Amino acid sequence: MSDWLPTLITPTPEAGYDLAVKLARVAVKLTQPDAAVRDKLRPEYAGDADALIAVSQVVATHFATVAAANGYWRGQS
Amino acid sequence: MSDWLPTLITPTPEAGYDLAVKLARVAVKLTQPDAAVRDKLRPEYAGDADALIAVSQVVATHFATVAAANGYWRGQS
Amino acid sequence: MSDWLPTLITPTPEAGYDLAVKLARVAVKLTQPDAAVRDKLRPEYAGDADALIAVSQVVATHFATVAAANGYWRGQS
Amino acid sequence: MSDWLPTLITPTPEAGYDLAVKLARVAVKLTQPDAAVRDKLRPEYAGDADALIAVSQVVATHFATVAAANGYWRGQS
Amino acid sequence: MSDWLPTLITPTPEAGYDLAVKLARVAVKLTQPDAAVRDKLRPEYAGDADALIAVSQVVATHFATVAAANGYWRGQS
Amino acid sequence: MSDWLPTLITPTPEAGYDLAVKLARVAVKLTQPDAAVRDKLRPEYAGDADALIAVSQVVATHFATVAAANGYWRGQS
Repeated sequence: MSDWLPTLITPTPEAGYDLAVKLARVAVKLTQPDAAVRDKLRPEYAGDADALIAVSQVVATHFATVAAANGYWRGQS
Repeated sequence: MSDWLPTLITPTPEAGYDLAVKLARVAVKLTQPDAAVRDKLRPEYAGDADALIAVSQVVATHFATVAAANGYWRGQS
Repeated sequence: MSDWLPTLITPTPEAGYDLAVKLARVAVKLTQPDAAVRDKLRPEYAGDADALIAVSQVVATHFATVAAANGYWRGQS
Repeated sequence: MSDWLPTLITPTPEAGYDLAVKLARVAVKLTQPDAAVRDKLRPEYAGDADALIAVSQVVATHFATVAAANGYWRGQS
Repeated sequence: MSDWLPTLITPTPEAGYDLAVKLARVAVKLTQPDAAVRDKLRPEYAGDADALIAVSQVVATHFATVAAANGYWRGQS
Repeated sequence: MSDWLPTLITPTPEAGYDLAVKLARVAVKLTQPDAAVRDKLRPEYAGDADALIAVSQVVATHFATVAAANGYWRGQS
């Protein structure tokens, strides 16, 4: 898990959103480093509405950070 | 899922709120890409008070970001 | 659902709080547009402590946004 | 429920914390206006660890807002 | 419960973190003032992973406030 | 638990993320100081999707703080 986060700066809001998704996933990897266990859990939560909403909440929190880091990409609007 | 988020800037607070709803939904799509599964889950959580409140929480978090990006639409008040 | 959010600016903190409550409710309406279903859910969550606390959390998140938009109504203190 | 929130400005951090507690409770009152129902729910959640932690989370969110409104009471440190 | 929060300013990040833990606990005390009940609940949630994570979430929210109040202790880095 | 948090400043975003993970864990340690109990809980929540997502949420909240403290590491982009 090295060099996975060189910067919070992204060229577009969409790329910033993708980074937020990545930031949400890495904490799961660090807490459950066994890929086999994670692979077993994935269909479980991907088919559970509550879990999907909870994932979306984590992404929202990270997106706030990434958006602030990028000055909300205001120069592009 | 490309070009769905060209900017965080919206003409009105209401359009900003709609964008927050969209931002909340995209994370669900990225985590559960199968539309058929999502369609099956929708009536389930749309009829569950706890899930609806949780969705509202995600929207609130994204709305905070969108509102900040737009300087709270202060010029229009 | 048009013209329900012309501005985040409110004359008083109390009006700002009321707006936060409204912002919390609209996401529920957009996710569950059927008023009959919402009416059926309401007594259920209004009588459930966990749901009431969760609603209060959503309101708190929106109130943070509305308060920031209004410069915390500092001119009135 | 009128005139319950004239200002977010408080003389001390402690008074700000008390205001955060109040802000957390008002959303519950507005969602469940029947005092008799609320009185029945209170012992239930006051004896439940998860509910107490959830209440504390709402207070934390409001305290962030009140603290920002007061410039973190820096002049008094 | 008086004079427990004279200031949000702390000499170090660590002291700021301890203050965040305290801020998280006080809301529980105010909601459940009976120390005997709280003592009974403690082993219950201290042995429950979900409750421990939820406590950590409250601390994180308060730490954000305390860190901002202290200008992130930047002068000491 | 002394001297574990000398500063919020980190050389890179990645190191900031690692610090966020640490900040999330310390609150758990302070609430459940018994390492044997924590060791028993770990496999339990590391194999539970909901718990992993909740941990990720706490990390996201702390990462927001650490990122702000570091000016979002903008000088390095």
